[in-house]
Amino acid sequence: MHILFHSPDEDEKAWKEELESVFPGAQMRVWQPGDNGPADYALVWVPPKEMLAHRTDIKAIFNLGAGVDAILRYRDALPPGVPLIRISDAGMGIQMAEYATHAVLRYFRRFDEYETQARAGIWNELKPHVREEFPIGILGLGVLGQRIIKALQHFEFPINGWSRTPKEIPGVRCYSGKDGLDEFLSKSRVLICVLPLTPETTGILNERTLSKLPQGSYVINIARGPELIEEDLLHLLDKRHIMAATLDVFQQEPHPKGSRLWGHPRITKTPHIAALTMRSQTIRQIAEKMQAMERGEPVEGLVDFDKGY
Amino acid sequence: MHILFHSPDEDEKAWKEELESVFPGAQMRVWQPGDNGPADYALVWVPPKEMLAHRTDIKAIFNLGAGVDAILRYRDALPPGVPLIRISDAGMGIQMAEYATHAVLRYFRRFDEYETQARAGIWNELKPHVREEFPIGILGLGVLGQRIIKALQHFEFPINGWSRTPKEIPGVRCYSGKDGLDEFLSKSRVLICVLPLTPETTGILNERTLSKLPQGSYVINIARGPELIEEDLLHLLDKRHIMAATLDVFQQEPHPKGSRLWGHPRITKTPHIAALTMRSQTIRQIAEKMQAMERGEPVEGLVDFDKGY
Repeated sequence: MHILFHSPDEDEKAWKEELESVFPGAQMRVWQPGDNGPADYALVWVPPKEMLAHRTDIKAIFNLGAGVDAILRYRDALPPGVPLIRISDAGMGIQMAEYATHAVLRYFRRFDEYETQARAGIWNELKPHVREEFPIGILGLGVLGQRIIKALQHFEFPINGWSRTPKEIPGVRCYSGKDGLDEFLSKSRVLICVLPLTPETTGILNERTLSKLPQGSYVINIARGPELIEEDLLHLLDKRHIMAATLDVFQQEPHPKGSRLWGHPRITKTPHIAALTMRSQTIRQIAEKMQAMERGEPVEGLVDFDKGY
Repeated sequence: MHILFHSPDEDEKAWKEELESVFPGAQMRVWQPGDNGPADYALVWVPPKEMLAHRTDIKAIFNLGAGVDAILRYRDALPPGVPLIRISDAGMGIQMAEYATHAVLRYFRRFDEYETQARAGIWNELKPHVREEFPIGILGLGVLGQRIIKALQHFEFPINGWSRTPKEIPGVRCYSGKDGLDEFLSKSRVLICVLPLTPETTGILNERTLSKLPQGSYVINIARGPELIEEDLLHLLDKRHIMAATLDVFQQEPHPKGSRLWGHPRITKTPHIAALTMRSQTIRQIAEKMQAMERGEPVEGLVDFDKGY
C-alpha cells in the first residue's frame, strides 16, 4: 500500500512513523517533483497541480483540512472518478469553537477596549452590552459551524444561522439561500464566517452585505481570505458601521508587510491558525477511511465538485 | 415594608421602581447619613458602618454581591442575630465563566502573543499548547467556581479544584485544606482564584504558593485584591516562572496611577468588572427571599460569620 504525502509545513517523519504504525502494510513517501511512481492514496495539503494531475492509479485523495478550494482550482486536471475526501472535524471543530468564543467574549465583554484603557493607565467601568441585544450570526452550518454554535449556546447568546440550503438546528434561528441572507445579516450583531470557499462565496462579505449588519457590529472571518473584500471592511470600520473585526485569513497569505490591515487598531489578526491540523486525530481518521475503502465500504467527507465542498 | 438601600454606583431610581413593582407593599429608600428611621430590610453594597451598626429593627441584610468581606470588617458592630444574606449567582456565575474562559483561551491559544506579533507586523505560527498539558486549577468551588468549571469542561480542559473543605465534583480532581494546596498548585498550569476574602485567604497567593505552580504558568485573579501579594507576582513574572497574569481586582481600587502593574505588558488588567450586579435578576432573587422570610420560611445564602462567607 503506497501513500503519497505532500504538506510541507508538517513534520513529515512524524507523519510517516505514525501513519505506518496505525495502518499496517502502509508505506508513506513524501512526494517530490517528478515522482510518478505507483501510489494507492494521496494525503495532501495545497498540493501542486503536477502531483495529482492525470494520476490515474490512486484510489482517493485525502485533503488534510476542511477546505478543498486549493485543489478544486485545477479540478479539470484531476484524475476523473477519483474521490476527493476532506477531513471532518478531527480536532478542528473544538479549535474553531475556541477561536470564535474568545473573539465573541472579547467583544461582548469589551475586553479589547479595557485593554486599550489599561495601556493608558485608565480605571473606568464601561457600560456592559446586553446579551439579548447581542445575537451571533454564523455563516455556514456544517460540522465546524455547528460546533461553534454549541460553544456559544453554552454562554446563552441568541444565535442565527445561515446556510446555502435550509437547515434546522435546535435553538438557532436558521436562514438560507440568497433570499435569506439580508435578513440574517440585519439581525446579527456579530458575524462569524465559516463558509467553504467556492465561486458563490468568493467576495460574499462586501460593502453591500456588511452594510446590512446593524450599526456597531463585529466581523470574525475564520474561513478563507477571498470571501472578504478587505477594502470594503476597512471602509465600514472607518465609518464605524463595523466596530471591530477579527481575521484569521487574508486575501494574500502571509499577509503582506505594510498593509492598512496590519496597522489597524480595531482589526485583530492571526496568521491562519484558527484550526491547525491535529496529526494524531487526522491520521487515525484517514487510516480508518482507507481501511473502509479497502473493504469496499462507503466513507464520509466525499467532496461534491459542483458544490465545491 | 421599609427597605433601606445603599449602593452608590447603581441607578437608585431604577432599583426603587423595579423592586417596588416586583414586591408589592415594599417601599425602598436610599439611606442617607443620619437616617435612623424604621426599616425592615437593608440592601447594601460596601455600606458604611454607621448604616448598619446597632440597627436592631431590621430582619435581614442583603449583600448585593457574592463577597461580604467589606461588611464583616465591622462584624462586632452588626446587630446581633440579624442574618446577612449574600446573592447567589443571579447572573454573576455566567459573567465569571465568560471572564475566566476568555482569559484561559487567550493563554491556551497564545492570542496575547499573536497580538504582540501582529502589532509588529509579524506573520508567524506559534507552537500550540497541548490541551492535556494545560490543566486548569480553580481555587474556590462554590457557585461561581463550579459555573467556571462547567464552561472550561465544555472545552475539554483537564480541571483541578481546591476548596477549604473536601468536595466532589464530576470530572474534577478535587483537593482540599492546607495539606492539599501544594499538590493542587503543582498540577495546575493556569490558576483561577474565586475564593472569598477571609483572614485565611488574605495573601494566599504569594511567593511561596505561586512558586508551586509549574514553570510557565498563568494566574487569573477574579476574587479579591488582598488575596494576591502583587509584589510577589511581579517578582515571579520577572523570573518568567509565571508567564502572564490577568487581574480584575487589586490591593487598592481604583488601582493607583503609575504602579508597576499598570505598565507591565504581561499583566492584563480590568477595573473590577468580572461580574457586575445584574439588577433585574438580583431584585427578583432578593424579593423572593424577603417574601419567603415573611412567610417564616428558610432562605439560601446565609453568611457564616466565622467562615467569612
